[in-house]
Amino acid sequence: MAINSLYSHKSVRQYTDEPINPETLNRIIAAGIRGSNTGNMQLYSIVITQDKDMKARLLPAHFGQPMISSAAAVVTVCADINRINKWCTQRNADAGFDNMQTLIWSTIDATIVTQNIALAAEEEGLGVCYLGTTTYNPEQLVDILHLPKGVFPITTLTIGHPAAQLPLTDRLPVEAVVHHEMYSDYSNDDIDRFYVAKENDPANKAFVAENNKEN
Amino acid sequence: MAINSLYSHKSVRQYTDEPINPETLNRIIAAGIRGSNTGNMQLYSIVITQDKDMKARLLPAHFGQPMISSAAAVVTVCADINRINKWCTQRNADAGFDNMQTLIWSTIDATIVTQNIALAAEEEGLGVCYLGTTTYNPEQLVDILHLPKGVFPITTLTIGHPAAQLPLTDRLPVEAVVHHEMYSDYSNDDIDRFYVAKENDPANKAFVAENNKEN
Repeated sequence: MAINSLYSHKSVRQYTDEPINPETLNRIIAAGIRGSNTGNMQLYSIVITQDKDMKARLLPAHFGQPMISSAAAVVTVCADINRINKWCTQRNADAGFDNMQTLIWSTIDATIVTQNIALAAEEEGLGVCYLGTTTYNPEQLVDILHLPKGVFPITTLTIGHPAAQLPLTDRLPVEAVVHHEMYSDYSNDDIDRFYVAKENDPANKAFVAENNKEN
Repeated sequence: MAINSLYSHKSVRQYTDEPINPETLNRIIAAGIRGSNTGNMQLYSIVITQDKDMKARLLPAHFGQPMISSAAAVVTVCADINRINKWCTQRNADAGFDNMQTLIWSTIDATIVTQNIALAAEEEGLGVCYLGTTTYNPEQLVDILHLPKGVFPITTLTIGHPAAQLPLTDRLPVEAVVHHEMYSDYSNDDIDRFYVAKENDPANKAFVAENNKEN
């Protein structure tokens, strides 16, 4: 059942060189765009990179993360008010989308469609990884992907056939992120209690030691 | 199979008065927080409103949308850098999260967890609806939900047992939102072609007519 597939999500950072079947990719995208979006305006665009040379061009913008090269598809999801602006202009309607509110909505729309694509890909047996580097070098991505005014890269998902499975990563306990009725601010004791497992995780301890940090 | 449940998503705006079983709600939230997030920092908090008086207080901030009153749970998902700042401060680590980059990451984190919660709720037979009004009146929500500095409401999901099912809403054709290798900007003909179904939709036509707009 699907709720179990939500539970078992793991990022996949190593892929085989098998391409994604085009029909599978179509199904994934079609499922993705069924997600909720603001006023059914679909304030996003999805740029799919499968060409090897194009992936090589994207690589530096993502600080050389190897998922870019090895994934069969690099999916850059953008907030997009260009398309709806063109539609409104062409129909003599008042667009009025060039504001902060629309930026937030389009960021939410772009993220929902990305998460749907991620889950649909996993249901098809593929592995995915989000790249938080997307918003570090937006001007590079704008240039490489020919994004016009009104189109801003929000997040990137790499998709491919998994070559290796990593173990499930830790999460804070549910009570650390959930508040009932009102936000109950964290006491020092809460912080100690909620983060103790993360602090005792051997991988995290090694990372702190490697970087010569106290914490 | 789950990809079909992604395909069949519909917003549910009318709910019965049956509450959500607490164990079901726990499963939904637990599945939600398994979603990807930036650097496993979980830069979000989830505020769950089930109390009738609290829902009444939230209602004006959402322009009186009836889903607030009738849903068993109103889930306000916030970008949260307060918790991780407290952790870092308490461990003498440099926090450095008070910047635009972190705002984007935390908005993405908050949206991914919300979409996972939405899908988990649907898998449990519940109905959901996103409220895009969340970012219209953030100061009201900050006040009502006691959100401290560093916690900003991003989106709201109403969850409850469906009282009525609406038909599947339209979406633009896949080729209208997907670009291969590079963004291919829209010609006038593209806009005509991609929006023709939406423009001919009887409900949309009625909406335009009601509002005395040309388009």
